[in-house]
Amino acid sequence: MIELSLVGMGTGNPDHITRQGVAALNAADLILLPHKGADKADLADLRSSLCAQLITNATTRVVGFDMPVRDSADPDYQAGVNRWHDAIAQVWLAHIQAHLPQGGRLALLVWGDPSLYDSTLRIADRLALQLPLRVSVVPGITALQALTAAHAIALNEINAPVTITTGRRLRDHGWPADTSTVAVMLDGQCAFQHLPTEGTHIWWGAYLGMPNQICISGPLGDVRNRILEQRQAARAAHGWIMDTYLLRKSHPQQIRDPNGS
Amino acid sequence: MIELSLVGMGTGNPDHITRQGVAALNAADLILLPHKGADKADLADLRSSLCAQLITNATTRVVGFDMPVRDSADPDYQAGVNRWHDAIAQVWLAHIQAHLPQGGRLALLVWGDPSLYDSTLRIADRLALQLPLRVSVVPGITALQALTAAHAIALNEINAPVTITTGRRLRDHGWPADTSTVAVMLDGQCAFQHLPTEGTHIWWGAYLGMPNQICISGPLGDVRNRILEQRQAARAAHGWIMDTYLLRKSHPQQIRDPNGS
Repeated sequence: MIELSLVGMGTGNPDHITRQGVAALNAADLILLPHKGADKADLADLRSSLCAQLITNATTRVVGFDMPVRDSADPDYQAGVNRWHDAIAQVWLAHIQAHLPQGGRLALLVWGDPSLYDSTLRIADRLALQLPLRVSVVPGITALQALTAAHAIALNEINAPVTITTGRRLRDHGWPADTSTVAVMLDGQCAFQHLPTEGTHIWWGAYLGMPNQICISGPLGDVRNRILEQRQAARAAHGWIMDTYLLRKSHPQQIRDPNGS
Repeated sequence: MIELSLVGMGTGNPDHITRQGVAALNAADLILLPHKGADKADLADLRSSLCAQLITNATTRVVGFDMPVRDSADPDYQAGVNRWHDAIAQVWLAHIQAHLPQGGRLALLVWGDPSLYDSTLRIADRLALQLPLRVSVVPGITALQALTAAHAIALNEINAPVTITTGRRLRDHGWPADTSTVAVMLDGQCAFQHLPTEGTHIWWGAYLGMPNQICISGPLGDVRNRILEQRQAARAAHGWIMDTYLLRKSHPQQIRDPNGS
């Protein structure tokens, strides 16, 4: 039996991990850390550094593995993602067979929270087809929470809904119906630049929770270009960027609550 | 100058607080804890117990205050909420003037995360009109994250959106457009019981992250009554309940991604 603990590590800042997360890492026999290629070396370093700071159990082994690469040229997006997840499950399986042949406790660090735009749970489902597996999840601080904390704002308006979506969907489908607040993740293409700007405010953040955090907010029409320029410059300087943003329409008549004022 | 730190305390389980949250509590000169009335004594006790377990700084004072009560009979919901927030800000102000007349560091514990269906930031805005105030936010684990962790499920489907809404909105407006996944908070009336059940799955949880956690999941039509019964029994036994749930339609043709399979 493998007891797999998926530990939400928050933003990469070791202070954003919970006490439960620290305990789960120290309870593990084995922690697998992905290498993500040279251009994301900072990210791999962050995971290693987090382990070095938080793990006090001398019997916990930390082992690196080469992360399979998704074929982003695959025209069938969903099928390409499925094949990629299959490949990752196979790599995990090989490491489990090598390092935990008698079973034991495996922990994986997940950026943010394992529930939000992360595939680790889906990959674990594949692993469960190949060996006896019990999965537990340790929640972590998401990039959205780090974003709202950095700007000291609420995600929602009073009694109002919030839609969380991806850059791809915002680009392809426009503003979601029935909501004045949209939180956008996984947006490498800056979908906000294609939206009508009038009456829309943006709160943007990159490297949230880290020393090099950048935050910009304001009316979308006023700050859009500044975000695009700073994002490009920061990405060039670091070799990678992780960013997220919140959009809010200031005159949401269409979702007005009939019970409200 | 008052430095106000709003500390997301997660679910009430002290292991769900982050290292940053523990540090913020111990950096405070004063922590104000609300009493919420006899029927929610468990909740007030949880906050006190959290402070007792996490605060090691002997100079941090923990002071209780009587929470003003919202007039839930007010037909103008929004105006009633505004008046309630005004009253809370006045109570905070009186305690600050009494306990921190020269300024200092004040911390408030917030259930879950200060960004999500919580009014503490809005009340702090009112306080800022009356004294020099600097607000910082420490993110915490939300009930939604505790829910998805307890069920070991993802909040979203691949590249799909999620709408977070309230029980009141779900009851009054029905299923939000453009989404197959709806997370529901602040629902004292079990709005899910009025939804069509066909093709809809529910993951429900109460007292999430605590020893008395209850989780029920399944097709909405199959488990709806069991949730209603267990919720009523648990609420009667404890005198209060905090619960949340996720709903997903299993055949979301209407939001199918044109780039997907």
